[in-house]
Amino acid sequence: MALIVQKYGGTSVADLDRIRNVARRVVKTFEQGNQVVVILSAMAGVTDRLIEMANNMSKNPDRRELDVLLATGEQTTAALLAMWLKSQGHPSKSLLGFQAEVKTDCAYGNARIMDVGAGQIKKLLEDNNIVVVAGFQGCDADGNITTLGRGGSDTSAVAIAAALRADRCEIYTDVDGIYTADPNVCASARKLDRISCEEMLEMASLGAKVLHLRSVEFALKHHVPVWVRSSFNEEEGTMLVNGEHDMEREVVSSVTYNKNEARITLKKVPDQPGIAAKIFGPISDSGINVDMIIQNTRAGGQTDLTFTVPKTEYARALEIERKVAEQIGAEAVYGDENIAKVSVIGVGMKSHSGVAAKMFSTLAAENINIIMISTSEIRISCVVEQKQAELAVRALHTAFGLDKEK
Amino acid sequence: MALIVQKYGGTSVADLDRIRNVARRVVKTFEQGNQVVVILSAMAGVTDRLIEMANNMSKNPDRRELDVLLATGEQTTAALLAMWLKSQGHPSKSLLGFQAEVKTDCAYGNARIMDVGAGQIKKLLEDNNIVVVAGFQGCDADGNITTLGRGGSDTSAVAIAAALRADRCEIYTDVDGIYTADPNVCASARKLDRISCEEMLEMASLGAKVLHLRSVEFALKHHVPVWVRSSFNEEEGTMLVNGEHDMEREVVSSVTYNKNEARITLKKVPDQPGIAAKIFGPISDSGINVDMIIQNTRAGGQTDLTFTVPKTEYARALEIERKVAEQIGAEAVYGDENIAKVSVIGVGMKSHSGVAAKMFSTLAAENINIIMISTSEIRISCVVEQKQAELAVRALHTAFGLDKEK
Repeated sequence: MALIVQKYGGTSVADLDRIRNVARRVVKTFEQGNQVVVILSAMAGVTDRLIEMANNMSKNPDRRELDVLLATGEQTTAALLAMWLKSQGHPSKSLLGFQAEVKTDCAYGNARIMDVGAGQIKKLLEDNNIVVVAGFQGCDADGNITTLGRGGSDTSAVAIAAALRADRCEIYTDVDGIYTADPNVCASARKLDRISCEEMLEMASLGAKVLHLRSVEFALKHHVPVWVRSSFNEEEGTMLVNGEHDMEREVVSSVTYNKNEARITLKKVPDQPGIAAKIFGPISDSGINVDMIIQNTRAGGQTDLTFTVPKTEYARALEIERKVAEQIGAEAVYGDENIAKVSVIGVGMKSHSGVAAKMFSTLAAENINIIMISTSEIRISCVVEQKQAELAVRALHTAFGLDKEK
Repeated sequence: MALIVQKYGGTSVADLDRIRNVARRVVKTFEQGNQVVVILSAMAGVTDRLIEMANNMSKNPDRRELDVLLATGEQTTAALLAMWLKSQGHPSKSLLGFQAEVKTDCAYGNARIMDVGAGQIKKLLEDNNIVVVAGFQGCDADGNITTLGRGGSDTSAVAIAAALRADRCEIYTDVDGIYTADPNVCASARKLDRISCEEMLEMASLGAKVLHLRSVEFALKHHVPVWVRSSFNEEEGTMLVNGEHDMEREVVSSVTYNKNEARITLKKVPDQPGIAAKIFGPISDSGINVDMIIQNTRAGGQTDLTFTVPKTEYARALEIERKVAEQIGAEAVYGDENIAKVSVIGVGMKSHSGVAAKMFSTLAAENINIIMISTSEIRISCVVEQKQAELAVRALHTAFGLDKEK
């Protein structure tokens, strides 16, 4: 008998038929003699509709109340699933975030899980229940309802699996697992049987929507064995592994791209101490996340400074920087929304040199101009023209030997 | 400064515009220097849609899970109202049933409030908040979510008003107050300025949908001053008063009718001890509520027995009684869905005789046949043919001097 945590995402519970489909998977696992805890997202589209309703009530909805509103989405699916399980004769109970003792900080809309008191879940499991927990939600120390941010149900699942010391945490989604590249862009992409948590962290932070960033951090920290699988077929999916000892041997394990950023450049910025703070302070004060920053030194005590922000914040960031430029005496501010960030990721990079050089020469061979570059220990990212993103992904996928055998 | 509890029903919060309209009323009361606690129902129609969803998942949805599902309705409106108030610069916080410490028994779907720990509400009021509480819901001693049954938000409001020792509890609905009869049926019906809790109890138990039965019980027991008013105009509404000392002086204060019952008759039942238990036991075991029961003695050790059940349970009750009739040797079972119960209500009856006689003669003068009769200390009800219900109401309204002056 194993203790298995299964998380099903919004597309897996998008309507009542799909909830029944999920229920049948849950029952199958339960009838194989396992203890099962199910974590559910809201039905696909519901969270967006609730946000729309809130935006209709207020341009800037109160974050505490928005969380109270959003929490209804997962409450609905959890109740419906438990209801179906009961109607089929399987003992089951649903728990909301506060009932499952998912304790978070009080950062409404983007709360972090501080602790999961798994007492109630354990008690229900001992009574032979299938336990259904509303994902995405928790409560703070004062009993206020909080939500974990988009994709937060993944983190609910991994945190609950960690607290229960579950044998495995299965994340069910609408894709078969983690791929070497987006199969929609790169026909020769392969599904990975395994991926290291570190690589998954890089992928998640690059905007790959397969797993919530914090869920990977939790898996890494608490050594939770995580599987990413499809709820629509019986494929094995991809396993997240801690450490590199039994990783597949490619230096690069995946190629990703992200079209959700925009670039802003300040031209001829006076090269003085404290100037960066003047440029990025107002951006940070506005709650805009800056991703890449590049500074080129020019002759004559001046420098060009380029950075990227989420495309949704582009107009606001541009407006802020136009004021900043005036204050600090920069010559001009311009930007570009038509960019894409293409990255290669692999723990193998740690022990291999020449990856960057190979990336640059591959792009050059395709006549793709590199606009910005940033790197981590296991990742190299290049900003290119948006229209060349797909071509870049395919070229790099081939160059690093990731194409599936024909 | 007064402490005022305001409850708004489903039609008053049926859409976002109406929620804003409610919010403006709340703000007005608040800005007059009062402390305000708002209790909300779900948007009109939402609870029915959730029940439909549950029925799609299971023929007989698990009651615990159904409550988890239904509780989302009031959670939604509470969050939206608090959100709007905050966006307009008024400090406000929403509380769900468990956060407002509405403690109930564990009768899912029809839970009774055992206690309201008003600590959190008081604290928020002291911090100058407008407190918005999700009605209809509470939690049991084990922390499970419960709901109070249809119309239960009234009871939430009165119970919270009692716990807070509020100066008044205003129940906002889509009618101007309590009428001497349904104005849709009886054009000469008048709005009552006051009504006794006892009369209101009779009206609620007869199916008048203005107030939840238990809310009136609470008001009576805890001496909560309750006003029933419309949320769509500024009319004064109707005040519930405890005792009779300053009631209007009519013997009869209202005439009601109810078309939601059906009649079942067992003919020639052997007149033996224990026979009633054999007839009503199976009905009760099926969770069907019997309202009126009448037994006529016949010659020859046989009796005819007639009773009424909710129309929704008629088919099921008839089926049960056909089996019972066979077992006990009754001659026949037949029923009638085309009936209506017409009642006159008034605390004045306690000290006046002749009310029943006047009722019967009034109906006789209109050629209305009386099928069944039942009485309480302050009510007389007659079952008549359904098509004669409206005529009966109007005739009685006139006969008992309730018509408004022309």
